[in-house]
Amino acid sequence: MDIDAIHKALANPVRRQILQWLKEPQHHFSEQDHPLEMGVCCKLIDQKTGLSQSTVSAHLATLQRAGLVNTRRVGQWIFFQRNEEAIHAFLAQLNDGL
Amino acid sequence: MDIDAIHKALANPVRRQILQWLKEPQHHFSEQDHPLEMGVCCKLIDQKTGLSQSTVSAHLATLQRAGLVNTRRVGQWIFFQRNEEAIHAFLAQLNDGL
Repeated sequence: MDIDAIHKALANPVRRQILQWLKEPQHHFSEQDHPLEMGVCCKLIDQKTGLSQSTVSAHLATLQRAGLVNTRRVGQWIFFQRNEEAIHAFLAQLNDGL
Repeated sequence: MDIDAIHKALANPVRRQILQWLKEPQHHFSEQDHPLEMGVCCKLIDQKTGLSQSTVSAHLATLQRAGLVNTRRVGQWIFFQRNEEAIHAFLAQLNDGL
């Protein structure tokens, strides 16, 4: 677990917002055709933020590098899911260690 | 509470280490002449890190700007204490919101 990378990833309101949306995909991305169990398509995340695709793509890459989300490629699209195990381990360490 | 600033401050192992030392000043800074209740003198924190004074000074300023430590000036020295209230509020928000 790269604690520095996780804190850097969380030090941005857009990235925290994306993580929160991914917590309740059925609430925030109910329009997705693919089953939400496979994650949320980057295209829908782009649209929901209202930011450019390249900006959101960079945010998602930061979250992925920090290990906070898992990805799955389907055709041309990438689907994103929270890595609940990593998030839980990070919170546990922070609650103990901070 | 500036969540971005707090995460940025925590995204560094030296700053996290300093916060941990300040959690148990009687254990880590027992050699201090002044009462530990007034905080820990920046000079002792410098020495304990083994880093240059200017580097540690920058780390402490980052922690202070994020609101994670409180300071008190006594003569030429600055004494540092954890801001337990802010740390607690940050953890509560993270546990709820992440």
